[in-house]
Amino acid sequence: MTAPATITPVPELAARAKAASRLVGVASTPARNDALTAAADLLVAHAEQICEANAADVARAGAEGTPAHLIDRLRLSPARVEAMAGGLAQVAAWPDPLGQVTDGWTRPNGLRIERVRAPLGVVAVIYESRPNVTSDAAGLCLKSGNAAFLRGSSSAMESNRAITAVMREALDKVGLPPDGVVLVEDASRAAAVEFMRQRDFVDCLIPRGGPSLIQSVLDNATVPYVIDGAGNCHAYVDAAADLDMALGIVVNGKTQRPSVCNALESLVIHSQAAADFLPGAAAALDGVELVGDERARALVPSMGAASDADYATEYLDLKMSVKVVDSLSEAIGHINATGTGHSEVIVTGDLAAAERFAREVDAAVVLVNASSRFVDGEEFGFGAEIGISTQKLHARGPLGLEQLTTLKFVVRGDGQLRG
Amino acid sequence: MTAPATITPVPELAARAKAASRLVGVASTPARNDALTAAADLLVAHAEQICEANAADVARAGAEGTPAHLIDRLRLSPARVEAMAGGLAQVAAWPDPLGQVTDGWTRPNGLRIERVRAPLGVVAVIYESRPNVTSDAAGLCLKSGNAAFLRGSSSAMESNRAITAVMREALDKVGLPPDGVVLVEDASRAAAVEFMRQRDFVDCLIPRGGPSLIQSVLDNATVPYVIDGAGNCHAYVDAAADLDMALGIVVNGKTQRPSVCNALESLVIHSQAAADFLPGAAAALDGVELVGDERARALVPSMGAASDADYATEYLDLKMSVKVVDSLSEAIGHINATGTGHSEVIVTGDLAAAERFAREVDAAVVLVNASSRFVDGEEFGFGAEIGISTQKLHARGPLGLEQLTTLKFVVRGDGQLRG
Repeated sequence: MTAPATITPVPELAARAKAASRLVGVASTPARNDALTAAADLLVAHAEQICEANAADVARAGAEGTPAHLIDRLRLSPARVEAMAGGLAQVAAWPDPLGQVTDGWTRPNGLRIERVRAPLGVVAVIYESRPNVTSDAAGLCLKSGNAAFLRGSSSAMESNRAITAVMREALDKVGLPPDGVVLVEDASRAAAVEFMRQRDFVDCLIPRGGPSLIQSVLDNATVPYVIDGAGNCHAYVDAAADLDMALGIVVNGKTQRPSVCNALESLVIHSQAAADFLPGAAAALDGVELVGDERARALVPSMGAASDADYATEYLDLKMSVKVVDSLSEAIGHINATGTGHSEVIVTGDLAAAERFAREVDAAVVLVNASSRFVDGEEFGFGAEIGISTQKLHARGPLGLEQLTTLKFVVRGDGQLRG
Repeated sequence: MTAPATITPVPELAARAKAASRLVGVASTPARNDALTAAADLLVAHAEQICEANAADVARAGAEGTPAHLIDRLRLSPARVEAMAGGLAQVAAWPDPLGQVTDGWTRPNGLRIERVRAPLGVVAVIYESRPNVTSDAAGLCLKSGNAAFLRGSSSAMESNRAITAVMREALDKVGLPPDGVVLVEDASRAAAVEFMRQRDFVDCLIPRGGPSLIQSVLDNATVPYVIDGAGNCHAYVDAAADLDMALGIVVNGKTQRPSVCNALESLVIHSQAAADFLPGAAAALDGVELVGDERARALVPSMGAASDADYATEYLDLKMSVKVVDSLSEAIGHINATGTGHSEVIVTGDLAAAERFAREVDAAVVLVNASSRFVDGEEFGFGAEIGISTQKLHARGPLGLEQLTTLKFVVRGDGQLRG
């Protein structure tokens, strides 16, 4: 990595992003869309330079003995750069979230109150190796009228710098301030902590990375943040389930893409359905390691024993815990006790069971008779997504553009005074 | 203060509140309302014991040399207890925020997606001297289906304990778990920090107190929180303002109750209106110390000079800064640079100026031709309020019951699998 001659201090960069956010936030819809389209074109035009910068990152990672799968996440190709450009063009085509009036009313004294969707201001994103996050995050921020304040990993520094340069060039080209996208180039841990504490300038922090990054945010951040949490997702197969439907949902949820947060990790089954369901499910889940309680193991002798830790584990792999319960209440209690509040499924034909599960299970998303794999911004119709929040404040579930905005009250009167 | 025989550790109390929150959250609307009504009745019935407990707090505060105005905030009387009971009865009468479907749509694959208002779970409130916050906060939490996890000040410990006992008795009486209201009785600083870090159990923390409490939350909390921020509120009197209306709004905003966060702190006036407005305004603001820039002082010779610090200060007193500007742009720039994002007023008859101010001023509430003093939960029609948020995530502006809830996605299908 070629160190820049002087590294700009984090607060100065944050202040520049804040100043730019004032202009980005009041730019017209076409101006913001033009910036995204220009950035898409420039990414393609500069694909070669971006890939060269990336090659330097990849070479350094190789020399440092970085594992191959991490190098793969880091590596860009002309095709990957084109995909990044395509992502920006897509975001440009979405409806503008700003200016939407979500509700309004008139008070007895004649004051008219409206709640209007407005930009957050500066959205800070701290993320790990994949350099495409640089353009993805910047694109979503600009579309929603925010400045993007970015801190990528040191391993992708050259790539991130090249992509940021393109985004800034695009802003300049359409008459918006280049500081609408600002990258922190100080790769130190101290700078990361400083990044999370720019309370005067940052309106929202979004960490995109593993558990240690999340823990660092919890420990250090003084700015408001939205956390993309773990998914220990359950499917509960009720006594009144259509067992064919249940089999499809369990197999799809577990095996279609086991490494993601909306994949199933645990199967909870009513004791009345267990004998009919479990042996066939175990056969259909060929290649998945199952661990369960005694009653499940009695029905599927090849199943290992599940510990309490198993029921609390997000495997993100071809492994699944199984628990037999005697009632809907027991299922809900188990899921609320062991789940992470991400996505929870019930398969049932019993309306009352479905409604009770939907009301009592405490999760961002509760699904009735559908695969947990649908919990995703695109599948929900939000276009691309920034993540899936398991926190309850501000944003819960798939994060779309709307979650990069805030609401502002506008009150109109004709001279009202308070008595 | 009579120390309890053994003080229960904070995490154990938090876990109890969490367990209770599962039951409170699924209790019917009438059950939650009955709990509030029962608590109101019991407060009145036990007013004598509550006042006795309070007398012990007041006596201790007196012995410790606490200033008289703080002792007054601490003191309860039978009338104050009755007012607390009246508050609970009022909250019981409001509509239930839970179960509201805020939006919903159907995807091309037939999945029906709804967003439904649900309780947060455990709402933690940390607050300073006033013991009435104990019943107010508990009432709002229970109404919105949450357990209340409370940490008052040590100075009000006996009062808070007595009020909490009544709330718990009311819950028990209507068949809800008493742990729906839990008070932390450990008055140590370490316990306060621990209180802010119960991430496994607490869904939202609301601090109610001064700047040092807020700073402690920023420094220590790992749970999500909503901050009730300072209000350095401006009124901008435009060139096109009705100056009589402007005078009323400025005097009302500054003097009707100067000690609160929605009071005006600064007057910004267009240079074209300054000569006609400032001398009369200074006369009408008799008793208010004015400090201003050179042009303002030329028009009002009695005015002191304003420093940069003045323009950044929330006086909460009969003092006001004055600034003359040459354009709407300058006014907006000054307000965004010096304001705290609370409430900002424009007085104008110019529609374009009003609309631009509403869009470009970055504040929880922007008011056109109305007093800033209307920025208040009751004045907005929310019933009582928990505070006024100046943060942009989750809740911005006056906090009502709705802000004590979250949204949950409920997805209904008939066996959809992801391809």
